[in-house]
Amino acid sequence: MKKFINKIDDVLVESLSGFSSAHSDLVSLNLEPNFLTRKQKAANKVALISGGGSGHEPLHAGYIGYGMLDAACPGHVFTSPTPDQILAAAIAVHADKGILFIVKNYAGDVMNFEMAAEMLPFANELPIESATVLTSDDCAVVNSTYTTGRRGVAGTVIVEKCVGSLAETGADLQACKALGDKVNSRTASMGVALTSCTVPAAGRPTFDISDTELEMGVGIHGEPGRRREAMREADAIVSDCVEAIITDLKTRAILTANTCEALLLINGFGATPLMELYLIYNTALKLFNQHGIQISRSLVGNYTTALDMAGASITLCLLDDEIKQHWDSPVHTAALRWGR
Amino acid sequence: MKKFINKIDDVLVESLSGFSSAHSDLVSLNLEPNFLTRKQKAANKVALISGGGSGHEPLHAGYIGYGMLDAACPGHVFTSPTPDQILAAAIAVHADKGILFIVKNYAGDVMNFEMAAEMLPFANELPIESATVLTSDDCAVVNSTYTTGRRGVAGTVIVEKCVGSLAETGADLQACKALGDKVNSRTASMGVALTSCTVPAAGRPTFDISDTELEMGVGIHGEPGRRREAMREADAIVSDCVEAIITDLKTRAILTANTCEALLLINGFGATPLMELYLIYNTALKLFNQHGIQISRSLVGNYTTALDMAGASITLCLLDDEIKQHWDSPVHTAALRWGR
Repeated sequence: MKKFINKIDDVLVESLSGFSSAHSDLVSLNLEPNFLTRKQKAANKVALISGGGSGHEPLHAGYIGYGMLDAACPGHVFTSPTPDQILAAAIAVHADKGILFIVKNYAGDVMNFEMAAEMLPFANELPIESATVLTSDDCAVVNSTYTTGRRGVAGTVIVEKCVGSLAETGADLQACKALGDKVNSRTASMGVALTSCTVPAAGRPTFDISDTELEMGVGIHGEPGRRREAMREADAIVSDCVEAIITDLKTRAILTANTCEALLLINGFGATPLMELYLIYNTALKLFNQHGIQISRSLVGNYTTALDMAGASITLCLLDDEIKQHWDSPVHTAALRWGR
Repeated sequence: MKKFINKIDDVLVESLSGFSSAHSDLVSLNLEPNFLTRKQKAANKVALISGGGSGHEPLHAGYIGYGMLDAACPGHVFTSPTPDQILAAAIAVHADKGILFIVKNYAGDVMNFEMAAEMLPFANELPIESATVLTSDDCAVVNSTYTTGRRGVAGTVIVEKCVGSLAETGADLQACKALGDKVNSRTASMGVALTSCTVPAAGRPTFDISDTELEMGVGIHGEPGRRREAMREADAIVSDCVEAIITDLKTRAILTANTCEALLLINGFGATPLMELYLIYNTALKLFNQHGIQISRSLVGNYTTALDMAGASITLCLLDDEIKQHWDSPVHTAALRWGR
């Protein structure tokens, strides 16, 4: 294992310290328990908190700031944050309109965020209300290594962006949850791995894959997908991902019209060059167009990674006027920024 | 070789097509000859054109837009653009105040941009004036596989950003060139590779490196650096890079005061997780502080890549009021955006 690390036990804190120093205009870091908050605490809004295992950067700390999250709780690499982290973050950022937790659907994350939510009403002088949006955009498999139900993957970024925008308007907790649930329901993702990732504490690749194979439908922790296949041309790989997404959206009766408008996110898992991600975008765009889907918003890059995995995922979010408005609104975070 | 590609001959055009579709609000793509321009041609300003071999994305097309480049000329992977590409781009974007070419110092790039510059006065009805800034921030080696003199690497992004800002004010060609030369002279970079990259047309890694070695001072095409070493802790690797940068800036009498202010860029080569880049930032920040250098501006991410190389570079740019002003000013490109 060759990585830019010192002691394995120090990786997380050293990386978080670097992140908070590099973005000291945007975020503050609390250690023990570990969480990050906006530098300027927001007032009169629902506080949005996300979190999960580290190793998916810029998820979630990279999305703290105006128009997105109020706090993020990073666990150790590929390990859920603990309830005390989440509770401490909630107490730090709540601003009298309640807390919305945005949680990727993995058993450990769901359990620990639930425990924090249960403790929350008793943790403060005045009770703090909360609600939770579970993201589950990965259409590759139902149930997985760490998951009951579908996994939450790169579509989580779209949920965080849109709900973050709505929360800035002063919308209430139920409205924020409703938008998060809607965006999640209109989103589907499919990922492909060309290599494994290596968790620092493990010191060896999470799974074995040969020089001639790919894993279709891989999860962002290297969980198995739908099948192991022979390596093929990009067009064939992308076509299978697009078909999986279309089938999922049709099966769930989300995609019903003959034409519609969508956001296309091509997400790198960490070790795939931008040149290849744009090539994937080029093919996916044509294929979605052939299905009557007009791509009017796009995002290409490393937004939800799996450490050093070579691979990529394709995410489609079906837009409506409300989602478009909240996607387009200003955002100022380390990893997404526009309009200010 | 496992990559998201179709036919090797089509990689560049398919990737450029994806890029221009994903950013159709910002750029237009011309094929045969290949170049990209701003969607809205700018008026009354020096036109900034950069280019070079592909495989370093988001360099350079990702920096086209308000406050940075007017055009970019992508060659094939790790191959210089041809004079006809550069000439066609120049004719497309010139706006009566001349053309400034920003060129990384590699023999092929220098030669082809020079040829284009020589043809330029005769290519239009009215002669078009031009000047060139050569970037040469890599302090690892003098002369290299593809280079006479120092190599231009990630510091090029800082040159493009600052000169791009000045050009928007309507400054003349000589002022833009002077600022570019100044920023370049005040910038030093040092890179480290943990793995090779693989050029699609070659189909195998550019160089061999074992699981226990690193290449200190590597170039962005996998050119040899200062030495092959045993893999070490991040702090030791970063310390050597920081010392190389400090020594270079002192030797060139750029760093003379006991205290100064600087921009710190931690650049990933394409396959290194953001988590590790922030860990590198954390160490580099402390070490530069110990040298009396206050880091007041930061950039961490994949900004000048080497395809799928695992590795990173550290770039320090000594700031003054003029450079700070132009770094901070609004920019709207695919890969750098703030203030609008």
